[in-house]
Amino acid sequence: VSGVVLVTGAGGFVGRHAVADLIARGFTVHGVGRKPSHDDSITWHQADLLDDGARAALLHAVRPSHLFHLAWETRHGYFWSAPENPAWAEATLDLIRRFQDGGGRRAVVAGSCAEYDWSLNDGDCFETTTPCRPATPYGRAKLATFEAASEEAAASGLSLAWGRLFLLYGPHEGAARLVSSLIRAMLAGEPVALKEPTALRDFLHAADGGAAFGALVASDVEGPVNIASGRGVAIADVARMIGADVSGADAPPDGSPARLVADVSRLRDEVGFTPRYNLESGLTETVAWWRDQS
Amino acid sequence: VSGVVLVTGAGGFVGRHAVADLIARGFTVHGVGRKPSHDDSITWHQADLLDDGARAALLHAVRPSHLFHLAWETRHGYFWSAPENPAWAEATLDLIRRFQDGGGRRAVVAGSCAEYDWSLNDGDCFETTTPCRPATPYGRAKLATFEAASEEAAASGLSLAWGRLFLLYGPHEGAARLVSSLIRAMLAGEPVALKEPTALRDFLHAADGGAAFGALVASDVEGPVNIASGRGVAIADVARMIGADVSGADAPPDGSPARLVADVSRLRDEVGFTPRYNLESGLTETVAWWRDQS
Repeated sequence: VSGVVLVTGAGGFVGRHAVADLIARGFTVHGVGRKPSHDDSITWHQADLLDDGARAALLHAVRPSHLFHLAWETRHGYFWSAPENPAWAEATLDLIRRFQDGGGRRAVVAGSCAEYDWSLNDGDCFETTTPCRPATPYGRAKLATFEAASEEAAASGLSLAWGRLFLLYGPHEGAARLVSSLIRAMLAGEPVALKEPTALRDFLHAADGGAAFGALVASDVEGPVNIASGRGVAIADVARMIGADVSGADAPPDGSPARLVADVSRLRDEVGFTPRYNLESGLTETVAWWRDQS
Repeated sequence: VSGVVLVTGAGGFVGRHAVADLIARGFTVHGVGRKPSHDDSITWHQADLLDDGARAALLHAVRPSHLFHLAWETRHGYFWSAPENPAWAEATLDLIRRFQDGGGRRAVVAGSCAEYDWSLNDGDCFETTTPCRPATPYGRAKLATFEAASEEAAASGLSLAWGRLFLLYGPHEGAARLVSSLIRAMLAGEPVALKEPTALRDFLHAADGGAAFGALVASDVEGPVNIASGRGVAIADVARMIGADVSGADAPPDGSPARLVADVSRLRDEVGFTPRYNLESGLTETVAWWRDQS
């Protein structure tokens, strides 16, 4: 595959990795973002994609054969209900139309796991069978954009794929986001706050997310494609993995040992004692007791 | 076995369970504590065990055949370096002497995992082979008491066992202690702070701790005996177990799903993408990156 690909959000957390992958695949890469770029490997365009004229001028200047549209409002926490979501939906549809009008052949757009109905199938998300029912303005804007773009692509013959991102992590991630904040707290020896320790989530390294998008751009697969690991990991386990990495190099705080476990042979064999509870049943009883106190 | 047993700290977190167990074993139980008791099943003595005269009067009044000495300074956080630790060590030795002088035959005293050298054997604690080297004033006071009491018991023929408690949990535990605070935070829907998510600890239900002491009192086992489960569990896993118990009855906050995991058949089979990282290797790289930022 070769061609000229325009990457929006090219300077961002995932975009930088997608750009590297697309260059390696032989694409001529044009990037666009609101800020200047110091990346000499691609042709950079500084533009605000929410500006109609800027979009028109950009596509006129680049005339890409391929479009990878990653840009959106993504500020941590803010994006779920950001008033900018509808504007990004409109700008995305307009960008795809202008891209095709200018001779573009294949577009890949970043969608989201937030498009799915999270309450179904025990949280397993299949592109073709899991119904979409977004619970957030962000999810609704992404889904509405997907539906309108898919309809237009089917009618006009544009090759369109929609890569639904799940959770990402990796270097350069925003400091306030989950994995970054866990790492920073543990490196600083501070307590770690887990809002949902038992929640199982699908985490993908941003470099793999970018490379997966590169592969998707180069392929002819159409429709929705999950960009994810396929593995559900409890957030408490993520914290534990990070803790193991952090304490691998640093001593535990206050001489507190990494492990402290009794041998109970004497208690069991000489005293003849067997516990009534295991930790699971004991905690269940204790949680029930605290629930009754309130 | 039968006899008259004096239980110090009988109204506390472990003591109440030990009392129930000793009654079930046929002992006549006398309890002592600083506060009044509403427990009609035993003869209660209100006394301050740090007061020499109070100890003498108590033993004179009860004339126990067995002593289970559980009382000590145990206020959360405070006890590690409490100035009361040496006074409890002295009071404990005096209590044992007076107990034997009055005809007492068998004493069981509560020791602590804090007596062991935590840096050895990957944290495995064996009563007979793991060297003791307490890192805290509390641990040093307990160990010094154990050593002096053992020596005196060997010389005088007193049957003495020393039950080393590891971590306990269960109903009625102080609200600020680890398991209680995790449960309370999760029931309130608040973030959970884990200082050492990866630390492996040995947790025993307080009812089992009390019953184990009951069994130890009734036995003729002498010397140190670990009172514990023998199972090391990461604190993050304890949090996860509690979370599962809590969310079993409550809906997750904000409609956030318990599980959200992508099917990646399309990405793998149709796009042909394979990730470079798994979560372990990706987190290791990300932790290293953050470490370099500081």
